[in-house]
Amino acid sequence: MTAPNTLSATELAQRLDAGAVTAEAIVRAHLERIDQRDADVLAWSHLARDAALERARVLDRGPRQGLLHGIPMGVKDIIDSGDQPTTYGSPIYKTHRPLADAATIALAKNEGAILLGKTVTTEFANRHPGVTKNPHNPAHTPGGSSSGSAAAVADFQVVLATGTQTGGSVIRPGAFCGVVAYKPSYGHFAPAGMKANTEWLDTIGAYARTIEDIALFRAALMAMPYRPIARLDKPPRIAVCFTHHKAELSAEGTRAVNDAAALLAKAGAKVSEIDLPAPVRDMTEGQRTLSAFDGPRAHADEARRFPELLSESLKKDKLAAGAAIDYATWVAARKLGEKGRAAVDALFSDFDVILTAPAPGEAPVGLQTTGKATFNLLWTYLWMPCVTLPFTKGPTGLPVGIQLVGRQHEDTTLLDIAGWVRSAL
Amino acid sequence: MTAPNTLSATELAQRLDAGAVTAEAIVRAHLERIDQRDADVLAWSHLARDAALERARVLDRGPRQGLLHGIPMGVKDIIDSGDQPTTYGSPIYKTHRPLADAATIALAKNEGAILLGKTVTTEFANRHPGVTKNPHNPAHTPGGSSSGSAAAVADFQVVLATGTQTGGSVIRPGAFCGVVAYKPSYGHFAPAGMKANTEWLDTIGAYARTIEDIALFRAALMAMPYRPIARLDKPPRIAVCFTHHKAELSAEGTRAVNDAAALLAKAGAKVSEIDLPAPVRDMTEGQRTLSAFDGPRAHADEARRFPELLSESLKKDKLAAGAAIDYATWVAARKLGEKGRAAVDALFSDFDVILTAPAPGEAPVGLQTTGKATFNLLWTYLWMPCVTLPFTKGPTGLPVGIQLVGRQHEDTTLLDIAGWVRSAL
Repeated sequence: MTAPNTLSATELAQRLDAGAVTAEAIVRAHLERIDQRDADVLAWSHLARDAALERARVLDRGPRQGLLHGIPMGVKDIIDSGDQPTTYGSPIYKTHRPLADAATIALAKNEGAILLGKTVTTEFANRHPGVTKNPHNPAHTPGGSSSGSAAAVADFQVVLATGTQTGGSVIRPGAFCGVVAYKPSYGHFAPAGMKANTEWLDTIGAYARTIEDIALFRAALMAMPYRPIARLDKPPRIAVCFTHHKAELSAEGTRAVNDAAALLAKAGAKVSEIDLPAPVRDMTEGQRTLSAFDGPRAHADEARRFPELLSESLKKDKLAAGAAIDYATWVAARKLGEKGRAAVDALFSDFDVILTAPAPGEAPVGLQTTGKATFNLLWTYLWMPCVTLPFTKGPTGLPVGIQLVGRQHEDTTLLDIAGWVRSAL
Repeated sequence: MTAPNTLSATELAQRLDAGAVTAEAIVRAHLERIDQRDADVLAWSHLARDAALERARVLDRGPRQGLLHGIPMGVKDIIDSGDQPTTYGSPIYKTHRPLADAATIALAKNEGAILLGKTVTTEFANRHPGVTKNPHNPAHTPGGSSSGSAAAVADFQVVLATGTQTGGSVIRPGAFCGVVAYKPSYGHFAPAGMKANTEWLDTIGAYARTIEDIALFRAALMAMPYRPIARLDKPPRIAVCFTHHKAELSAEGTRAVNDAAALLAKAGAKVSEIDLPAPVRDMTEGQRTLSAFDGPRAHADEARRFPELLSESLKKDKLAAGAAIDYATWVAARKLGEKGRAAVDALFSDFDVILTAPAPGEAPVGLQTTGKATFNLLWTYLWMPCVTLPFTKGPTGLPVGIQLVGRQHEDTTLLDIAGWVRSAL
């Protein structure tokens, strides 16, 4: 029999329904994988072995709870859990035990999910890295800030996990680790219980190994009826977009987008290439302004009481940089956001989805940085839904993915297109 | 000498600077007022007597910390405080001691503010009332959900306080209690550390007894340089707007707006009356959709673990109502928001500010409800900055105010206009 930890959530749900596997066996399989592998990956900041097994046994004794009955889930440790520690990747919070689960955890539990543990985040979901290594090569970063979630799903240590993206923190680690990652339209997954980073941008997202699992997980996290990935009526119109950061793309990153575009055209998609007009293009700078401005505000308490426990990069990139931005500049960035979103929305009369790179290329070597979010910042600030799909490998043998970006609020369509693209590649 | 608790923060800051009063004396004066009065008002969910006095003494021994040096502040108990209990107005959180201050508290403390205590909120800043009474007449509601903050400032128990508005929770209690209240453009005061209600609408706001104090408090809460209320170059262009809810306005509410309009015209303002076009007008329904949809999501943990500790009104108005709203309806309300904001922004070529009612009329009798937010919902969802100013009295002798609504992000201008209006009335 196939080890349960190598199956998708959708497959596990079917086997659970058929009585072919128990929730307890699923949890045990994942814990065994963790025992074998996690010393090399270090994806978890807290692992709830006994509690997860106990909940599995309770679920096995009762009726089906919902969409995620018996499915183990990892949650980025920037999201509050009522029954597990929540450190936000900072020594300031090493004793932190929130009183309540975040909305996304409670909603997943309502559907029968099992919280296997909390996954490593960079400090406050910013740039200072956690301990996690890329499961494909421990000398390389897994990306960040949702480092542990991406690595754990890639390494078959858990089947579903959540992350958060303020710049590129869901999509980039997804691409670096070679999994499917989904950043919804801003505000689609209820952020209640997530530690604020830049509130105008922070978006909870999801990891899985299949696009079908993303659709299933999404339904649970939004408390909406599950509708599986649907077949498209006709192949999509795809706009290839290298953005105005094309020069920062590696050879393998460029090749992945071009090769994917060629394969998708062959499969029937109408493929064109677009340049982004201003003000859409200018959103990268807008993202940086908002993100920096929020630094000394969202982290005012930590900066006030525990400055010595903050990383140098947080102090420099967020606190000092943010203090240097004046109110008028911040307001201008907010207004730019409204303009940019209206402008990019109008472009969607000509295409259905944007195909671009999820990251400059393979995961860089070293664990001191989590790589660049260059190919994520503008989409994050445009509040557009994004999916990364694994596609090929780079010169070092690490995963190189593609990114699909949909129209704001058209997340269901984006996932359907991603399903078509996955089949076509 | 005038009792320090009857002075404004701006006046107190001047006297502190001049050595004419100490922070300790200011805190003592407020505590004495609380001792005299709060058994009748019940504005506080927690009072930090000793800690406030101790901090005042520390401040008195050191150099000036900033804009709010030595100024006592109340904080609505929906906002986390690291050194005081935070109940969110719910028995579920009666033992809750957050590990950190919310951003707005930490920022105020950076400027030398003294957290005198936490003020009563309705349950989760929703409709189920707290214990607070209207300080002008204890048989009447103070409004809600920021009940304690509005009442405490009105009753001279504290000089500044924060609140939050998702529907009408800052402006309405401000008007009912006869104080100056300010709801900024959405997201201007960093929400980090505020318990989520409807994240797409939740806005932290401020209470004071003068518009000058609002400008001072705002600068501290936004960590931006203080610029006092400025004189206008010329009288403003004012659009009187009764909204399409005019029929719900009481006689005294209508009269207040009309009388204010007449006085302001006499003072030189160009006054016209406007009807709101669709989609601006439709934002009331949009607000209700968003607010309900978020109910079972933002409160998923409480609904899952402690349903018996939730009020019947929360279960009915938020949880059940929200579960009945489908995803497409919610997305339509989100899109309506973008349209409405663009449409109302365009109207501002013809006027500088909207003059409207902050509430249907006087505070209603009884403590079972906190009154209607009919005249607040659309502005909240339009993310527009709002100020209420006390103006006249109703048939029962309770305060009746007016509301000024500014262009999104033009908060500084709105406060300047409010200063002009205050002088002209």
